[in-house]
Amino acid sequence: MNIWRVNMQNQQVSKEATPETWRHLGGRGLIAKILVEEVPGTCDPLGPKNKLIFAPGLLVGHRLSSCDRISVGTKSPLTGGVKEANAGGRTGLQLTYLGIKALIIESAPTGKDFFILYLSQDKIELLRADELVGKGVYETTALLTKAFGEKAAIALIGPGGEMKLSSAGIQNVDKDGVPSRINARGGVGAVMGSKGLKAIVIDSSTGSPPELFNEGGFKEAQKEFQKALLAHPQTTVYSDYGTAAMTLMTNGFGAIPTRNFSSGQFEHAEKISGETMREMLLKRGGKSQTSHACMAGCIIRCSNVFADESGKNEIVSPLEYETIGLMGSNLGIGDLDWIARLNWEVNDLGLDSIEIGAALGVAAEGGIFEFGNGKAALKLLIEFRSGSPLGRLIGSGAETTGKVLGVKRIPAVKGQAMSAYEPRVIKGTGVTYATSPQGADHTCGLTIRAKVDHQDPKGQAKLSQRAQVNMAGYDSLGACIFAGFGFASVPQTIKALINTRYGLSVGDDILHQLGKETLEMEREFNRLAGFTQADDRLPEWMYSEPVPPNNPIFDVPDEDLDSVFVW
Amino acid sequence: MNIWRVNMQNQQVSKEATPETWRHLGGRGLIAKILVEEVPGTCDPLGPKNKLIFAPGLLVGHRLSSCDRISVGTKSPLTGGVKEANAGGRTGLQLTYLGIKALIIESAPTGKDFFILYLSQDKIELLRADELVGKGVYETTALLTKAFGEKAAIALIGPGGEMKLSSAGIQNVDKDGVPSRINARGGVGAVMGSKGLKAIVIDSSTGSPPELFNEGGFKEAQKEFQKALLAHPQTTVYSDYGTAAMTLMTNGFGAIPTRNFSSGQFEHAEKISGETMREMLLKRGGKSQTSHACMAGCIIRCSNVFADESGKNEIVSPLEYETIGLMGSNLGIGDLDWIARLNWEVNDLGLDSIEIGAALGVAAEGGIFEFGNGKAALKLLIEFRSGSPLGRLIGSGAETTGKVLGVKRIPAVKGQAMSAYEPRVIKGTGVTYATSPQGADHTCGLTIRAKVDHQDPKGQAKLSQRAQVNMAGYDSLGACIFAGFGFASVPQTIKALINTRYGLSVGDDILHQLGKETLEMEREFNRLAGFTQADDRLPEWMYSEPVPPNNPIFDVPDEDLDSVFVW
Repeated sequence: MNIWRVNMQNQQVSKEATPETWRHLGGRGLIAKILVEEVPGTCDPLGPKNKLIFAPGLLVGHRLSSCDRISVGTKSPLTGGVKEANAGGRTGLQLTYLGIKALIIESAPTGKDFFILYLSQDKIELLRADELVGKGVYETTALLTKAFGEKAAIALIGPGGEMKLSSAGIQNVDKDGVPSRINARGGVGAVMGSKGLKAIVIDSSTGSPPELFNEGGFKEAQKEFQKALLAHPQTTVYSDYGTAAMTLMTNGFGAIPTRNFSSGQFEHAEKISGETMREMLLKRGGKSQTSHACMAGCIIRCSNVFADESGKNEIVSPLEYETIGLMGSNLGIGDLDWIARLNWEVNDLGLDSIEIGAALGVAAEGGIFEFGNGKAALKLLIEFRSGSPLGRLIGSGAETTGKVLGVKRIPAVKGQAMSAYEPRVIKGTGVTYATSPQGADHTCGLTIRAKVDHQDPKGQAKLSQRAQVNMAGYDSLGACIFAGFGFASVPQTIKALINTRYGLSVGDDILHQLGKETLEMEREFNRLAGFTQADDRLPEWMYSEPVPPNNPIFDVPDEDLDSVFVW
Repeated sequence: MNIWRVNMQNQQVSKEATPETWRHLGGRGLIAKILVEEVPGTCDPLGPKNKLIFAPGLLVGHRLSSCDRISVGTKSPLTGGVKEANAGGRTGLQLTYLGIKALIIESAPTGKDFFILYLSQDKIELLRADELVGKGVYETTALLTKAFGEKAAIALIGPGGEMKLSSAGIQNVDKDGVPSRINARGGVGAVMGSKGLKAIVIDSSTGSPPELFNEGGFKEAQKEFQKALLAHPQTTVYSDYGTAAMTLMTNGFGAIPTRNFSSGQFEHAEKISGETMREMLLKRGGKSQTSHACMAGCIIRCSNVFADESGKNEIVSPLEYETIGLMGSNLGIGDLDWIARLNWEVNDLGLDSIEIGAALGVAAEGGIFEFGNGKAALKLLIEFRSGSPLGRLIGSGAETTGKVLGVKRIPAVKGQAMSAYEPRVIKGTGVTYATSPQGADHTCGLTIRAKVDHQDPKGQAKLSQRAQVNMAGYDSLGACIFAGFGFASVPQTIKALINTRYGLSVGDDILHQLGKETLEMEREFNRLAGFTQADDRLPEWMYSEPVPPNNPIFDVPDEDLDSVFVW
């Protein structure tokens, strides 16, 4: 496995052997390592000194269920700190087929042109993307698919990334060619835009799956892991209802963000639940799918296809819990069809639906439109395409939107919006939001499934610590958050998979080792970027304003927050 | 001298003796002390935990030339760090007549009402300001003057402060009752708005000048200082041309910000120079004044009254260099009448003309209007009053404006816009911009008058250090930056004035002692707020983009920047 570099100033490309000290790392961990070693902490995230890194996780390349994710990392224009955002789809698998351990996009073009980076076994080239500029993600994908064939992996940005909006993500086509798997958070798409890259097309037809050191051992471990995953009750839940299964759970806890985090319960939660969605999709039929895999080989298949009333036209695919929470209840919108339309628009713009949902919530509180008015929200999103100041403002994320509009209630940490778990209620996740080097992000350590009193501040720091270490580990493996259901049952398979693939002899503790090493490097990058303990806090208003209906405040003591990374 | 406190939540007021450890401090130094002791570094600048402090300097109260300034301090909503902004006018003098060492506005109202704080020897009260809400600074001042008499001191905010815009300042009436003396920088007006205070009216008619420990000695030192000040050649320059005398000097150096800091020389510099302005004002006559004092007793009188062509109507008073640089050359506007009109609008909105000038420059580069179009700039400012997103965006300052509009060239440090001295040319001032705890601010340590090669990076850190220590000292005395011309000639008078006023026995080094102590407390507050060395840098583009016509970049090494506060 090699390191491929593309310099966007002089258009030079190079391949080099993976340095010894990088070899045991992958995905999120490798990104942290490269950032610490090669990117100045204080650099302008959208300037030539920043780098954009694509790194498949350590277990990517084998169609191991839920384990082919692609991590994208950079210094975030949203948080100003370390950033890794991972996604499903084909990108990780095909990069690995080309033998790419990490693809590093460096420097910045002097002009304003956009390019397509084409990668194959024999050829690396930058092609002009003039005809794609300004086009939405779906149309761009169709054009690229036509040009490069249906099997290519594509990672691309929409108009939001071209405009360098801090909420812009990078979309990857899924196993069916739909560009719906998003490295969503922290503005990685803006950095891709700043590099003058509209898309990366990966043609691995001449590549091959990575060699296995011990094929038999690997297959055995794979079988054991997939069996455990299949047996886990949660796998069935996610197959049936997708992540939207979470809606009634968080609503029951009083922890679903509602009208800009002013309440934790939504009177129309039922209408936007996974259960309701499943019924709707089954009834609508046609193009509707209640279950869909984003990566080849995934046995959970938590995605879906949301078609319209007639079943004939797809509105969006997939419709997931975070979007339902942030663009539904958080905007006071209790109608899945409207949420799906908003979701499509955000996807086509190439933006993060969490950040935009939170920013729209703040904008509604700031008087820009009325909560519950899906049409007005959609109109605002459509306005983004013109590059209007208001569109650019909301596209800059919840924190900037709130500061400019004079809104006190901004649900963000380190400049990044919270996901759809109210941290005053699910306090362990609040600790994660506060202390994660990534900014507020549930995928960095969600605690909602722990059997604890979530409103009790005691013990939440430890709970978050464990979750953060695990997640940093999984993100380095290329494993989806839900692969954890399987790995948790048969943890020895992680060690076995790594050892049989790489011919290593890592120990039982490998997940935690990778997790801790990753978190320490990420914190080191943030330290160099100027972060301190002062940044590891929830916004002040969450410490004093109770959230209905249970009315807790966030009361995990600062000392507990500061203990999270003391192992 | 006492500490007066006003709690805006319960409307309680209190007076207390000055704590022993606060007594030797005044103005900027006292503010730093109070912030470190009473305001949590991580608090929301617009929330109830922040405090707004009015503190006259140590020498205020005697009509000592240029030494009656009022410092206002708080945690800045613009920079997120320590903030002190000082101004002339009557406020400092009259607060001192009431025996107020510091006025501390605490907590925050629960509702959205605005109040007038009335202070006199016998009465402290909060009066409803319903009829003033939304009104501009000039109209508000007229109404308050009518209600409270022509002799009252008034400190007030405009619509910008009510909207809590991060560029909002606090205006003070000058000796003639004109509300033109501005605690301009860092959003102190936004904090006043967040406290629900539209204005503070100070009636010192029953008060009296502070007692002097040794009246004869004080008068003698005063005489010596004023004589030295009067004799300084710069005093005559500022009397004749005002601060606008600086225009041709900076233009000559290639250091006048032009079209969003893209050049250091302006082809119309002549037209917006102090020399041209003086000629114009002399020719226009009528209400024009080429020289005007903002504080009673000032012998420099660097202000002016800028009347229109007919001389019959005042456009603005005063028109100063920073405004000419930031709203003139920086916007490509080479017409003093247009600059004066923009200045009036910004004053009436209650905003900082430096921050707004810089933000408009960034907005022009971002395509919002064309450089050189005064009418379009004015239209934008007028739009502020409606609270439109674009108005609020520009009102949030240059950095936020640039980030949202995707502009790379943002002239700001710690979120605060640079003043009208190009730091790539006047590198000592660049060091000040980079390292001052206040963010980019020429008043924290201007080096342009030093007899050095300003483009040579060597020695600039030391030069900035001396200037920063001096300025922090003067800002603690209540002395105007120009009083320094006198004090530099007869430095022993500082010691003499303090000792004869307070009955102390401070040494020759008192200015530096005050300066260093102040800077160390400010840095401590910033440390608690989460600042690190990473914040003590100029923006990255200034390290690589040469500024015409001399084409220097900023190349003072980081080690030098980090040495500034190593005494």
